Amino acid sequence: MVFMGKRAGCTSPTQEEINDRLIALARGGRRVVRLKGGDPFVFGRGGEEVKALSEAGIPCVVIPGVTAGVAVPASLGIPVTHRGTAGSVAFVTGHPGKGKSDPVAWDRLVGAVDTLVIYMGMTRLGDIVKALLAGGAAPETPAAVIAHGTTVAQRYVVATLAELPEAVVREAIPTPAIIVVGKVVAERKTFTTLATVAMPSGVLG
Amino acid sequence: MVFMGKRAGCTSPTQEEINDRLIALARGGRRVVRLKGGDPFVFGRGGEEVKALSEAGIPCVVIPGVTAGVAVPASLGIPVTHRGTAGSVAFVTGHPGKGKSDPVAWDRLVGAVDTLVIYMGMTRLGDIVKALLAGGAAPETPAAVIAHGTTVAQRYVVATLAELPEAVVREAIPTPAIIVVGKVVAERKTFTTLATVAMPSGVLG
Repeated sequence: MVFMGKRAGCTSPTQEEINDRLIALARGGRRVVRLKGGDPFVFGRGGEEVKALSEAGIPCVVIPGVTAGVAVPASLGIPVTHRGTAGSVAFVTGHPGKGKSDPVAWDRLVGAVDTLVIYMGMTRLGDIVKALLAGGAAPETPAAVIAHGTTVAQRYVVATLAELPEAVVREAIPTPAIIVVGKVVAERKTFTTLATVAMPSGVLG
Repeated sequence: MVFMGKRAGCTSPTQEEINDRLIALARGGRRVVRLKGGDPFVFGRGGEEVKALSEAGIPCVVIPGVTAGVAVPASLGIPVTHRGTAGSVAFVTGHPGKGKSDPVAWDRLVGAVDTLVIYMGMTRLGDIVKALLAGGAAPETPAAVIAHGTTVAQRYVVATLAELPEAVVREAIPTPAIIVVGKVVAERKTFTTLATVAMPSGVLG
């Protein structure tokens, strides 16, 4: 068992180092299982690993997983789609990658989808909210930030889109976290008998 | 075990009938497991069932699943996100619901997200493609339709967006199917050693 994940405060292996390790282990005659949290093909770098393995001529199989953008909102009783409320959902990355320009057209997203789920957006939350509001998003759109989703360390805050950055600071919501924007965030209030994951702390909006 | 799913050519239970059955069984003192294909909160009507149970005062738990929009493209080697190619993906429904207007702003979706995954869109495929092209989508955008995804009955076709409706008819691709539009569809060609699910037939684009 080789840990290749990211931990706050520690030096994380680069994607290239991970790819190299996979290839080296496979060439050493081993059957290698690369276990990821979530789904490998939804902001999971799975494609990059498959590509590296393909270039090295190493056969591989991908087994899909449950992605955080679905499971983390669900843990709070937020359905990312809901008939009559949301017929579309977008999963986007808030993290453009080192030295890269932002790949997300925030202004175009407004009105294009009913629910917006942002992965890795916490360090840029203020700018993202500004861009969405500038694109025409209603300031009172329900929104949530859920940190350490589905774990016992889960913490969250629910606020309007405009008030979300301030609420996150006030409640000292840590990272990593999933950001959800859309009417479905309010929908969970009608799910009165739904058991959600145990949360030691959190602010109910 | 009570089958409450949909089968082509058979009368399907309505959502209200399903809700009523869940409530009646729970009130009869049973622990009820409502098993769904995919994820209950991604075009799965899970929210409607939780709402009905909440109104009836019946406690419930939701366990997330692997949604078709991620797993079915993956079965063909299509990552819905891929660094440098797609930093965003939208899951939308192509089926507006009886007597409802289309909830999807097709023209706004163009340029808003890199990858578009359409559930339940086959009966309206021609209109959807027209709307995307009218919204400014490039006719040569890579696209795929995958029917009966991840099963031994899986069939698929890969074409340009403009040619997709014709290709689906020509290859007699059945329903249900997932439609994928975006550069990631071409990405799978670089995944030369990835084992994809067994497919008795299919057209490689």
